[in-house]
Amino acid sequence: MVKRVAVILSGCGVYDGTEIHEASAVLVHLSRAGAKVQMFAPDADQMHVVNHCEGKPTEEKRNILQESARIARGDVTDLAKLDVSAFDAAIIPGGFGVAKNLCDWAVKNKDCTVLPHLEKSIKAFHKAGKPLGMCCISPVLAAKILPGCELTVGQDKECDKWVKYFKKNRNVNGYETVLVNVPRLFMLRWPFAQTAGAVKQMGCKHVNKDVEEAHVDVKNKLVTTCAFMCNAPIHKVFDGVGAMVKETLKLA
Amino acid sequence: MVKRVAVILSGCGVYDGTEIHEASAVLVHLSRAGAKVQMFAPDADQMHVVNHCEGKPTEEKRNILQESARIARGDVTDLAKLDVSAFDAAIIPGGFGVAKNLCDWAVKNKDCTVLPHLEKSIKAFHKAGKPLGMCCISPVLAAKILPGCELTVGQDKECDKWVKYFKKNRNVNGYETVLVNVPRLFMLRWPFAQTAGAVKQMGCKHVNKDVEEAHVDVKNKLVTTCAFMCNAPIHKVFDGVGAMVKETLKLA
Repeated sequence: MVKRVAVILSGCGVYDGTEIHEASAVLVHLSRAGAKVQMFAPDADQMHVVNHCEGKPTEEKRNILQESARIARGDVTDLAKLDVSAFDAAIIPGGFGVAKNLCDWAVKNKDCTVLPHLEKSIKAFHKAGKPLGMCCISPVLAAKILPGCELTVGQDKECDKWVKYFKKNRNVNGYETVLVNVPRLFMLRWPFAQTAGAVKQMGCKHVNKDVEEAHVDVKNKLVTTCAFMCNAPIHKVFDGVGAMVKETLKLA
Repeated sequence: MVKRVAVILSGCGVYDGTEIHEASAVLVHLSRAGAKVQMFAPDADQMHVVNHCEGKPTEEKRNILQESARIARGDVTDLAKLDVSAFDAAIIPGGFGVAKNLCDWAVKNKDCTVLPHLEKSIKAFHKAGKPLGMCCISPVLAAKILPGCELTVGQDKECDKWVKYFKKNRNVNGYETVLVNVPRLFMLRWPFAQTAGAVKQMGCKHVNKDVEEAHVDVKNKLVTTCAFMCNAPIHKVFDGVGAMVKETLKLA
């Protein structure tokens, strides 16, 4: 049986929309598994349009659906038309669009609210025993809607690998060189580790996982992977998304 | 030795910029091979901003470098600063951005001109014996700049697989059903097959290849694959781009 999967987008670009490479990885892995995909996005203005060279918001307005169509090569449907009964699973790639356009996590963190139709749809997938796959920041949607669920956003400490990196390079670069010349955020392997703390405060169980791994909450049929919450080479993010897609389809 | 690869972008979105999934596939395969990547794009206005839901140009203006930064997650450099001596190879993903922003193929076809700095850079890579990898429509840049080169843009006939599809489905759907109910462009496996004729008229040798294959012009160190010139599942495009990246790195 061909698995029918709804992929939910939130724009096009890591700082104001869907993270492009996470979405592309989701589509490649679903395609290889022979799944039938339909993409959805809200027909509404983005919260921000960010100049991705500078990382700063501009005055522009852009429509989430139209920008998502760049990832979907035109073939994307208004999220308001998502009919859960027509699908076996849903997958939500990450990017700040999740935290800005699908909910307001970017502003309100754990006190965020989720787009009403998306909240309704996630609850309907859950109630029907249909799996949900999420990566990067999108597991916060599950944390909000499925209290007590288990998920991963990577690691709950910023610096596990940073320390290792430092030690490994001590003899070559020395302490001063590493600390002074390399921007700290670039060096941190888990710059968004505080997200793990936030989902714990929301009553969820956070499970530390590496970038190539996915965590499966069997009870809630929720599959998560950290993707670009980790400063990792893009092929490792691709593989982690692959693990998430595979486990999601297994549960469908 | 780590291979240093310049990846040249032309915006973000198939109809007015770089084809997102081709770029993502290039980056995943380069990352897995351990290459060191720097991305470049022109700091100039796009020829078009296309509403990707409707496929129609809008009145908006967008900057090629800023939009490319969506694919590059912020880390993209003005193409004017590309120093060929710092790289072992260059790769140019496809998308209409190549035909609109890197040259004017979309308007002038085989009489197109290429952005001066890009033309200079491509000639410099070629002269230095450094390989060039191109996919989808970007091989027309090579056709223009390296006369007599060998390349592929897929197949030179629109309907090879369309006929097969029709025959395969004859007993199920019948002739009328297939022809009437399915939009012709959707059915065609090679909707842009006329591009092969155009590059032949420019004095190049076009080599028919399937979507998962790359063609290597050993003499010119030019590696090409058709990518989304073929109506194929996205994982096959991903694999074809992988073949292109692999052969390009082999020559570097």
